Amino acid sequence: MFDIVYLLEMIGIIAFAISGMIVARAKNMDPVGVFTIGFITAMGGGTLRDLILDNHPVYWIQHQEMPLLILLLSVVFSYWNRVDRIRAARIVIPDAIGLGVFSILGAQLALDLGHSLFIAALLGVMTGTFGGALRDTMCNEVPQIFRKDQIYASISFVGCWLYFLCVWLLDSQAISLTIGLVFIAVVRILAVRFDIRLQRDASPH
Amino acid sequence: MFDIVYLLEMIGIIAFAISGMIVARAKNMDPVGVFTIGFITAMGGGTLRDLILDNHPVYWIQHQEMPLLILLLSVVFSYWNRVDRIRAARIVIPDAIGLGVFSILGAQLALDLGHSLFIAALLGVMTGTFGGALRDTMCNEVPQIFRKDQIYASISFVGCWLYFLCVWLLDSQAISLTIGLVFIAVVRILAVRFDIRLQRDASPH
Amino acid sequence: MFDIVYLLEMIGIIAFAISGMIVARAKNMDPVGVFTIGFITAMGGGTLRDLILDNHPVYWIQHQEMPLLILLLSVVFSYWNRVDRIRAARIVIPDAIGLGVFSILGAQLALDLGHSLFIAALLGVMTGTFGGALRDTMCNEVPQIFRKDQIYASISFVGCWLYFLCVWLLDSQAISLTIGLVFIAVVRILAVRFDIRLQRDASPH
Repeated sequence: MFDIVYLLEMIGIIAFAISGMIVARAKNMDPVGVFTIGFITAMGGGTLRDLILDNHPVYWIQHQEMPLLILLLSVVFSYWNRVDRIRAARIVIPDAIGLGVFSILGAQLALDLGHSLFIAALLGVMTGTFGGALRDTMCNEVPQIFRKDQIYASISFVGCWLYFLCVWLLDSQAISLTIGLVFIAVVRILAVRFDIRLQRDASPH
Repeated sequence: MFDIVYLLEMIGIIAFAISGMIVARAKNMDPVGVFTIGFITAMGGGTLRDLILDNHPVYWIQHQEMPLLILLLSVVFSYWNRVDRIRAARIVIPDAIGLGVFSILGAQLALDLGHSLFIAALLGVMTGTFGGALRDTMCNEVPQIFRKDQIYASISFVGCWLYFLCVWLLDSQAISLTIGLVFIAVVRILAVRFDIRLQRDASPH
Repeated sequence: MFDIVYLLEMIGIIAFAISGMIVARAKNMDPVGVFTIGFITAMGGGTLRDLILDNHPVYWIQHQEMPLLILLLSVVFSYWNRVDRIRAARIVIPDAIGLGVFSILGAQLALDLGHSLFIAALLGVMTGTFGGALRDTMCNEVPQIFRKDQIYASISFVGCWLYFLCVWLLDSQAISLTIGLVFIAVVRILAVRFDIRLQRDASPH
C-alpha cells in the first residue's frame, strides 16, 4: 500500500510544483521566487492538513527528497529558456492532477486517523485546494476558488465521496484511489474545456 | 459548564459565518466561495488558537456538526435571493457578537491550559480577530484591524481583562463569561455607531 | 548555551518588531495596527517553525516577556512623534539583523530535534523570511522575496550552510552562531547597498 500512495504523492507534488513554477515564470520572478511558489503550491495543502490533524512529522520533513526535487525543478525552470514559451493557461493539466491526488490522499489520511467521512471530505478539499489558493494569492491573483469560475473545490468534494463509495463497494483501496483521482482530474479538465460553473452572473459582461 | 460554552461557541460560529457570507454575497461569489469564506471567518480564529496552544483535535474536527451547519447555511445564503438585499454594512452586529464570544472563549481555553493572564488575553484577541481578518484579506479588503478605523482589537483585549477581573471577583464563570462578551459586543457596536477611534488622521480627508 | 541563544532571540525580535513598526507607521496605522504588524513580523517566522516542527509550547508563549516587550515598543512607536521622521528605507538594517538571527536559530532548532542539514537549512530560511513576508503582505506590498530584487532568502540559505560548516570545523557553537548571523546580516546590507541580484530583467525599465 505504501508504494502506490508514495508514488501518487510524488506525482501530485511534481504536478503542483510545475503549476506554481509556470505562474512564477509568467510573473517574471527570480529563482528564489520560482522555488518558493513551487514549494508552497506543492506543499501548502499537505502541510495545512498535517498541522490540523496533528500528524507529525509533517510529510515533507519525513521525505526530504520531496523539497530537494522541487529545488532541482526550480533550477531547471529558472534557467532553461524554453520554459518561458509555456503559456500560463497550460497550468490547467498539472493543476488538475495535483488536485485529484491531494484531495484523495488528504481524505484517506483523515480516515486513517479515525475521523468521520464528512471531516475526511473537508480535509481532502483543503489538502487539494489550499496550495493552489496560496499560489494565486501570492502571485496577486484572486484565488480562482472564490470567483464565479469553472467548478474546482466542488469537484474535489464530490470526488472524495466517490472514493469513499468505491472503497465501500470494491474492497480495493488501490482501485478506489485511482477512480477517485482520475474522476477529479478529468472532470476538472472538462470543466475548464466546456466552461462548467455552479452559478453565472445574470448580467452580461 | 460545558453547555454554556458549547452554546456560546455555536452562537459565535453562526454570527461569524453569517458575517462572512454577507461579504461573500456582496462580492458576488459562487456557492463554494460563500461556504469557504463563511467557514474561514467562523473557524479561522479558533483553528489558529488550537494550533498555537497544541490543543488537539481542533475544535471543529471534534464537533463536526459545526462545519455541517456552515454547509447548510451556505446553501441558504447562495440560493435564497432575499439575502442579496442585506447591505454589507449589516455585518457589524453578527461580527460584534462573534468577536465577543470568541475573544472570551479563546482566553478561557488558554487559562484552562495553564497559561498566564497576559498570554490568555493575547490568545483571546487572536481567536476573536483572526477569522474576520482572513475574511477581509480574502475578499480583497484591507483588514479593518490595520486601519485607523473604529476600535476593534483593543475592545477584545480590554474585554478579556474585564472577564479575568469578573472571574476573580464574582466566583461565577457563567456570569463572568456573559459580562465579558456582552461588554465586547456592545462596545464594538457603539464604537461603530459613534465613530470611536484610537487615533485620527491630522489631515482632513 | 541558553544565554547566548536567548540574547540573540531578543535581538532578532526587537530588530524585526522595529522593522514592522516603521512600515506600519509609514502606512499611517493606529496603535493596534502598529502592535499587530510588529508582533507578526517578529513572531511569524518562529511560530511557523514551532508549528511545523511540533515544538510546543510555541516560544513566545514560553517567554511572555517577548510579546510584552513588543507591546511596550508599540506604545513608543505609536505616540512618539520623532518616529515619523524615520524613513521606511531605514528598515534594511534591523530587517537584516532579524534575518540573520532567526535563520541561524531556526536551523539550529531543527538540528536539535534531529532533522537533516537540508531540512534544517529550509526551516532556517522559513524562520528568517516568513515574518518579513507577512509584514509586506499585510501592508499591501508584494513580498520582496518574490520580486527580482536584491538577494534575500538565498543569503539566508547560504548562511545556514556556512553555519553548519563552522560547527563541523570549529567545534564551538557560540563562534559558529556569530559567524553565521554576521555573514547573513552583512551580506544582506551589502546586497541592498550594491544592488546584488540573482537575475535581472533583460528589458530596461
